Amino acid sequence: MKTWKIAMIGFGTVGQGLAEILLAKEQSLKDEEGFACSVVAVSDLRLGSVLAPSGIDLKEALRMVKEGKSLDGYPGGKGGLDAAATIRETNADVLVEIGYTDIRTGEPATSHVRQALARGMHVVTTNKGPVALFLPDLLDLARSKGVRFLFEGTVMSGTPVLSFAKKNLAGCRVLSFSGILNGTTNYMLTEMEKGMGYDEILKKAQELGYAEAVPDADVKGWDALGKVVILSNYVLGARVKPSDIPCEGITEITPEKMKKAASEGKRYKLIGRASIDGGRVQASVAPATLPLSDPLAGVSGPTNAVTFETDLLGSVTVVGPGAGRAATGFAVLADLIDIHRSCGK
Amino acid sequence: MKTWKIAMIGFGTVGQGLAEILLAKEQSLKDEEGFACSVVAVSDLRLGSVLAPSGIDLKEALRMVKEGKSLDGYPGGKGGLDAAATIRETNADVLVEIGYTDIRTGEPATSHVRQALARGMHVVTTNKGPVALFLPDLLDLARSKGVRFLFEGTVMSGTPVLSFAKKNLAGCRVLSFSGILNGTTNYMLTEMEKGMGYDEILKKAQELGYAEAVPDADVKGWDALGKVVILSNYVLGARVKPSDIPCEGITEITPEKMKKAASEGKRYKLIGRASIDGGRVQASVAPATLPLSDPLAGVSGPTNAVTFETDLLGSVTVVGPGAGRAATGFAVLADLIDIHRSCGK
Repeated sequence: MKTWKIAMIGFGTVGQGLAEILLAKEQSLKDEEGFACSVVAVSDLRLGSVLAPSGIDLKEALRMVKEGKSLDGYPGGKGGLDAAATIRETNADVLVEIGYTDIRTGEPATSHVRQALARGMHVVTTNKGPVALFLPDLLDLARSKGVRFLFEGTVMSGTPVLSFAKKNLAGCRVLSFSGILNGTTNYMLTEMEKGMGYDEILKKAQELGYAEAVPDADVKGWDALGKVVILSNYVLGARVKPSDIPCEGITEITPEKMKKAASEGKRYKLIGRASIDGGRVQASVAPATLPLSDPLAGVSGPTNAVTFETDLLGSVTVVGPGAGRAATGFAVLADLIDIHRSCGK
Repeated sequence: MKTWKIAMIGFGTVGQGLAEILLAKEQSLKDEEGFACSVVAVSDLRLGSVLAPSGIDLKEALRMVKEGKSLDGYPGGKGGLDAAATIRETNADVLVEIGYTDIRTGEPATSHVRQALARGMHVVTTNKGPVALFLPDLLDLARSKGVRFLFEGTVMSGTPVLSFAKKNLAGCRVLSFSGILNGTTNYMLTEMEKGMGYDEILKKAQELGYAEAVPDADVKGWDALGKVVILSNYVLGARVKPSDIPCEGITEITPEKMKKAASEGKRYKLIGRASIDGGRVQASVAPATLPLSDPLAGVSGPTNAVTFETDLLGSVTVVGPGAGRAATGFAVLADLIDIHRSCGK
């Protein structure tokens, strides 16, 4: 059995969640998938770094982080390397890029992804930035190096919608999609329907950890926009940029507007959508009033969902979590298993 | 590029739908999937049979059927063979078994499946009978012969829930599922909510072709039961038979009961479910009153849906068609592409 060697850039919530999953599932992944892996490098801006070509004891690394110790001091490892040096020096087969990234520039994740692909490593990321901004380039680079570039976690975290559209629907033509692609705003809209005001519910969402202190990426629709770009380019075969797509958030939705919609048997949702017709893509992020019979209308709280319109199946909808430590850790695991299935046997 | 040679047992609605899809998608399947196929045998109880080792012109076969001519007279082919003789004589790599089958005995489809697997052919079927009754045996036989046995179309027709649970969720543990697995009864319940009586709506469902003249398989829950057995054994790893599972249909649901549920913010659905705990499976088919916030409560008309409860992702739901000529044809195509991806490159 091949043991995959993995380097992780970023060891925050997602990274630690992944480490916990790899520990908990070590045996069942071997038994059921023939999948085995060893993390040989970790580099985190805040938590330090460690290079250990024969493998890091993840239990020990998690313990050190929990006790506030820098990974630089991991016994028997080489510490003090930044991400670029880690990618240059590691013996890993796969880079898992889950570090901090500026969504507007896609950096530094994009540079890490390029560097690893150029070195002939497979790359898995949950960072929207590189994928929303540079997908065609990165896929070309991966292809030219004979490696895989996978990013299931960029849309609906671990809910496997990208693989669903590309693999399970293979043979169908996907004509369009529409989805609830941001959990924070869907949670806020669900609560607002119960009568809370916008400011009050925003504060509650921030307390629950759903919304950031500066909530613009969620409430102005930018997060959903990144996902619409990824789905458009990856599933519909478009070549759009975020700046090509009109984007409106939920900040103009009032309890009054919601009541009016309810009186018409409808419900406000923040919908990201795109359709393709003769090569032309029309995409948007905007509030929409959906009839209650629409599968997306019933999706409440922080849950996400996307409906694909196809030629042979008509509408098919996938509903699932859009965030969370275990769910996003699973997104990375699902991509690792995918690489294993296609390249590891 | 390998050209898959296919034998079809059954050339009714599903078979003709598949033939139309293969014709319409010939080029895109080559371009996008590297998939090419040639139908080398067709045998149908009612429409005749043809064996043509170098390939049948599907346009011509569809034209003959439309004009009421027997396939026995297909020019240049060998006619007059029953299913068993067809499977014995064909040069096909894959058997597509989509003929008439008695759901209680699984025959004659099960015999055809066994015969083809024993000959070393891959087998694709949309017939619930063989899969609900004999799945472990048939999978063992396929494994011993080094071939695939696939049956996506047996649950929710072309909506890819079996592959979703086995492939996209690989790495998660599926703890339980619950679903709306019969479109006819879901259509009837949706209409009954609007106030129509049971008899009236059954008549309408029969006129629309959703329900059979003898509607027992649908309204008594037997069809959903078959799907619960398949999901339990294939996804949860159980070993249950239809007779192990309590099964109640929709015949006892009255408009009065529906009104009472509605007054409590709930809605009647016919739910098939199963959970596994320490190797013990608990499964049932029965009407349930779901809160409107349940993703299954919003699934209306003939649409189907299934929710999987998993360890890492929590709830994930897939909603899509549960029947239809193109959708069921696609189920077969999806399995053929799956075989191609795993064995054909």
